[in-house]
Amino acid sequence: MSGAAKLLVLNAGSSSLKFKIFGLEPFAAGVSGMFDRIGDAANCTLKASAAADAAGGKGRKWELKIPAKDHVGAMQNIMEFIKENVSSGFAREVVAVGHRIVHGLEISQPVLLNDKSIAKIREAAVLAPLHNPPGLQGIEAAESVFRGVPQVAVFDTAFHQTMPPHAYMYGLPYDMYEKHKIRRYGFHGTSHQYLVEQAAEMLGKPVSETNVITCHLGNGSSIAAVRGGQCIDTTMGMTPLEGLLMGTRCGDVDPAVVLHIQKQLKLSIQDTDTLLNKKSGLLGLTGSNDLRAVIDGAHRGEPRSVLGLAMFVYRVQKYIGAYTAALLGKVDAVVFSAGIGENSSIIRGLILEPLKGMGMVLDPAANAATVGGKQGAISVPASPVKLFVIPTDEELAIAHQTLKASGRAG
Amino acid sequence: MSGAAKLLVLNAGSSSLKFKIFGLEPFAAGVSGMFDRIGDAANCTLKASAAADAAGGKGRKWELKIPAKDHVGAMQNIMEFIKENVSSGFAREVVAVGHRIVHGLEISQPVLLNDKSIAKIREAAVLAPLHNPPGLQGIEAAESVFRGVPQVAVFDTAFHQTMPPHAYMYGLPYDMYEKHKIRRYGFHGTSHQYLVEQAAEMLGKPVSETNVITCHLGNGSSIAAVRGGQCIDTTMGMTPLEGLLMGTRCGDVDPAVVLHIQKQLKLSIQDTDTLLNKKSGLLGLTGSNDLRAVIDGAHRGEPRSVLGLAMFVYRVQKYIGAYTAALLGKVDAVVFSAGIGENSSIIRGLILEPLKGMGMVLDPAANAATVGGKQGAISVPASPVKLFVIPTDEELAIAHQTLKASGRAG
Repeated sequence: MSGAAKLLVLNAGSSSLKFKIFGLEPFAAGVSGMFDRIGDAANCTLKASAAADAAGGKGRKWELKIPAKDHVGAMQNIMEFIKENVSSGFAREVVAVGHRIVHGLEISQPVLLNDKSIAKIREAAVLAPLHNPPGLQGIEAAESVFRGVPQVAVFDTAFHQTMPPHAYMYGLPYDMYEKHKIRRYGFHGTSHQYLVEQAAEMLGKPVSETNVITCHLGNGSSIAAVRGGQCIDTTMGMTPLEGLLMGTRCGDVDPAVVLHIQKQLKLSIQDTDTLLNKKSGLLGLTGSNDLRAVIDGAHRGEPRSVLGLAMFVYRVQKYIGAYTAALLGKVDAVVFSAGIGENSSIIRGLILEPLKGMGMVLDPAANAATVGGKQGAISVPASPVKLFVIPTDEELAIAHQTLKASGRAG
Repeated sequence: MSGAAKLLVLNAGSSSLKFKIFGLEPFAAGVSGMFDRIGDAANCTLKASAAADAAGGKGRKWELKIPAKDHVGAMQNIMEFIKENVSSGFAREVVAVGHRIVHGLEISQPVLLNDKSIAKIREAAVLAPLHNPPGLQGIEAAESVFRGVPQVAVFDTAFHQTMPPHAYMYGLPYDMYEKHKIRRYGFHGTSHQYLVEQAAEMLGKPVSETNVITCHLGNGSSIAAVRGGQCIDTTMGMTPLEGLLMGTRCGDVDPAVVLHIQKQLKLSIQDTDTLLNKKSGLLGLTGSNDLRAVIDGAHRGEPRSVLGLAMFVYRVQKYIGAYTAALLGKVDAVVFSAGIGENSSIIRGLILEPLKGMGMVLDPAANAATVGGKQGAISVPASPVKLFVIPTDEELAIAHQTLKASGRAG
């Protein structure tokens, strides 16, 4: 893929920088990789891979130990790596850079980055103190090597901006919304949107007539209710803490519990936040934040693993029910995606087998066979509500949206 | 009803003491009343009423200004009032006293009061600091006038003790449950249990085969999912703050919001608790905690009333959907009760009209006619899920449970 115009997608975490390169003529995903443990000189690693391509290019994998003291340093190392291994003229070939940004407040579309939009991302950092600052570092890193190239922010919150007020407002004094922007925003929006588009195609319906419940189940998990292609509700809230049981996040809990824990355990606000975000969920209940380990533990009969597994499954079932009501019983399909949703036929079975009475009739053989990146229906043909597995591809969706927002075809 | 054996039911609030007298031969509700503004000498009031009875006794109402400095004082005044107006030998006629106690931790049955069970209620006050201390004052007040009479505590939490762990556990470190008793308990249990028994009768089914969703909608609101007569989930949590939108309580909210508000507004734990419990809900959104006023405001087109009304309705719908999934789609009936549920055909219509696609088909005429204490079905005969209005009667349920627990027939 050397020589031709390219697009770069970046996804920055607090100590990581993921990248994926797309060729534009023709549009195709190329090399992708991740810089991990940025700032930790001894362990800082760049892993990358190139899938085998139709033109005969073979698949390749790289793993390099290279120190990088910050995101700017990591970016420079990534550029060196690409120059050597992918395309020597990469710096000149990139026509646009797309950034995944977690929190975009009430922004409903991808935005071209400039002083004004960057200020807005900074503003949103009050509500996403863990997530938006790394995104800003990713932007800074890209600017250090791609001066003058259009950069686009694609927000995890944007797709959910179509929620009606009765779904996004909390039952708090109205001031909290007006003055402090406290409301449900939702996350994983790029993934949910991609899933809706794919589901519409599988249903053979226009997106604007598609009613689906999309379950993005990974280490972080969320579900969205989508009516006529537009999000009408989602499980994550002002932050990614609300909703389902997650790897280390508690999800839904009586708000009084938050204050009670603080008081009883004499914890600071920060320590309580860490407890709820980093030490709860599957980890807090079972000792492992990895659902596969929890499933194994449950098979061995460990009571806490049995409990953690049952809680994970039950919360997904409850939200499928809640969103069936939000869609007034008119659900075309329930979609499963992300790490757990794409790969764990066990979890999908535990969630769906009992929901036959909701018009969701699983085909156990199709369920067992649809793993490891396969896309397909896992319901029996007569099932009133279709059940789909769709591997999500956030980078691809970000690439399309970046092209569109930067003035090229999306 | 003078002369014969009687039973007294007490329900103590922080500055109130409600009472209801039941005659036992035959069993029948008699005079009931409420001491309000205890401790406020200028405004302290005793209101009471006697319904017209089948034996020809006429209905009567009383309203007296009598100061009472505490619950013991109020109880003495109530005794004087009953002696003068109901039965001169009342103090000797009472064979048992039943107390409504809000929080009973993991106690699943009414208990006869003794030092041990009173200590347990005191222990539960850690989780119910607003509710259990008045209950203890009510017990003390009854002991001051009924020495030697069996007293029974009936807990608002007891009916929900059949919830399975995956429904009552939160996604918090397991310690929080083991050491600190943090879990979902649920409230309004006496009401939900009464509604289930009445619904089973209306369905012509044994309670043990009855699957219902019971909606107790008042100034405090909760919903329960009931399978085979047993509670399997409910919307209120460790405290009555979780779940639906209420008069002054926020209900469900991203737990991170609780910490964010504290931090941004520099509020103490206590002030944050007050904000969420006393200044939120319909009051915080619309300026009024009275749903009737909110409905009026919405009719006048006031945007915040429109919002508050839509949020109240939507949350009920979502939980009806969630509990339909929890019951695996096998729901015999949805029951409406308490102040709003019994009287507001408008709210029931807003909740149920859109849920036809969930098999819940409202009969608008029956809905409009079933108000003001009437009991009946409000679904069309062909509705797969029946819709019932059932006036709740917690005092009656407490009376029955008190008789049973005190060794008399229940």
